[in-house]
Amino acid sequence: MAEAPLYFSAADRQRLEPHLPPPQTSSRTSSHSQATDLSPPSCSALPFVSLTFATSLDSALSLGPGIRTTLSGPQSKAMTHYLRTRHDAICVGVGTAIADDPGLNSRLDTDEGSSRNTVSVTAHQPRPIIIDPRLRWDFTAQSKVMRLAREGKGLAPYIVTLQKEPPVQKKEILEGVGGKFISLNAAHDDEEKIGGTRRLDWRAILSAVRQEGLRSIMIEGGAEVINSLLGEEANLVDSVIVTIAPVWLGRGGVTVSPPRTHNVNRPVARLSDTMWMPLGDDVVLCGRIAR
Amino acid sequence: MAEAPLYFSAADRQRLEPHLPPPQTSSRTSSHSQATDLSPPSCSALPFVSLTFATSLDSALSLGPGIRTTLSGPQSKAMTHYLRTRHDAICVGVGTAIADDPGLNSRLDTDEGSSRNTVSVTAHQPRPIIIDPRLRWDFTAQSKVMRLAREGKGLAPYIVTLQKEPPVQKKEILEGVGGKFISLNAAHDDEEKIGGTRRLDWRAILSAVRQEGLRSIMIEGGAEVINSLLGEEANLVDSVIVTIAPVWLGRGGVTVSPPRTHNVNRPVARLSDTMWMPLGDDVVLCGRIAR
Repeated sequence: MAEAPLYFSAADRQRLEPHLPPPQTSSRTSSHSQATDLSPPSCSALPFVSLTFATSLDSALSLGPGIRTTLSGPQSKAMTHYLRTRHDAICVGVGTAIADDPGLNSRLDTDEGSSRNTVSVTAHQPRPIIIDPRLRWDFTAQSKVMRLAREGKGLAPYIVTLQKEPPVQKKEILEGVGGKFISLNAAHDDEEKIGGTRRLDWRAILSAVRQEGLRSIMIEGGAEVINSLLGEEANLVDSVIVTIAPVWLGRGGVTVSPPRTHNVNRPVARLSDTMWMPLGDDVVLCGRIAR
Repeated sequence: MAEAPLYFSAADRQRLEPHLPPPQTSSRTSSHSQATDLSPPSCSALPFVSLTFATSLDSALSLGPGIRTTLSGPQSKAMTHYLRTRHDAICVGVGTAIADDPGLNSRLDTDEGSSRNTVSVTAHQPRPIIIDPRLRWDFTAQSKVMRLAREGKGLAPYIVTLQKEPPVQKKEILEGVGGKFISLNAAHDDEEKIGGTRRLDWRAILSAVRQEGLRSIMIEGGAEVINSLLGEEANLVDSVIVTIAPVWLGRGGVTVSPPRTHNVNRPVARLSDTMWMPLGDDVVLCGRIAR
């Protein structure tokens, strides 16, 4: 399938601006971070975090586990690719990496004035971050994100994992395109859990991302990641941007609906400072999670 | 709780117009109906059907079964009450009647020009239709819809049921305020189903509604009714109007998500001719179910 460059108008960009990280030209600090461009980030510094995804009207990301489902139309797709140029990093969980073989680059045509037929490969590209605690993703040199990195159409991925010694062969592929593994420790209170479940802690992941000089991150999915960041980890999120397509996928889809951890008789999360922006057949909702 | 009259602007009304039944002053026929005002409806004539409800971002109508949950803000609430003035009938399932003790009238202030403090009780009120196959709803003379009918603030309800002989006491209460039972036969192919499940058929219900001279009906819920009308009975629906509030209720809510009866690898329903209309913190989506 030919992948054409995407166009996103200046007027639409302007409307999104209040919901995006500060532009690269200015000092970029998130609500969590005291860091500036002049000093290295402290260990507690975190990037500006945007949570962004597309659902059906019945809050499904896809028809089922592992089924890649096209939900949003061309205009909201262009918006997503614009968002990718406005963040230093783009993050998905391992499930999405396995199911979608995603490119995690931006195909946005940044040259608004001229012909739309020229792909601007020099557009700002986000750093792909893949969260893969147990290295389940069996990538190869032909995986899309590796290919795009080799072709200069995207940056090489960083894979965040709990594994201390990633397999040498994988390391070679990854480092061959300019990427790397980032090994973190498991969250303390989860280390000895029943069944030996060891989890990555979002604060540790985001801190590691910031230590790499990445001052903003756009987290795209999948469902487990989103439900966690709308639920118990909501305090880490600066901005939420949801595209909704006018379709019901029906029962059995992979859905966004965070667990009710605290109070079963209260909504899990509410957005404040909301903006609804119709884009083609879809709507884009921007907001902040109300504290 | 004092219930103030609600205000819905002329500009917003205008935007909704293409998604509503033809106005009362003109000849009112639905896409399913050949009937005009001059001749009695044929048995196959059906009213214009609008399906209208409010959900959270995770497609929930409420936090759980029987828990009344306020989702939409004052502006989209006013819209709902405007919609009620634009339909001859308003319909809910028995679950909603039991859980919510709903008023099923319109509190819209129709007098746009003057003070908003005068309730216009002469506003067009819809006929409440309650679908209660086995007469589970234990209403009394004090149920809200009965009270409003006595006070002239709404019309008396019609209760559609499979019971041939409703209890005399209930009949007295209902007929005392000007309402009645409408007894229908069960759908033929369901009559002998396992467990003796006898169901009302939507086409029969709507045909009975039309026989009562009601040329448009707004169906508000609950989940079972909505999922059925978005799914296998979608061909009966002329217009869909969904309000979405920027909140995630979280797992365990009562959700709108129709079962995938035909093809598990295809969305159940898609809206065409869509209009997204931000209203306060919410968005209102209007459309037609794509055939």
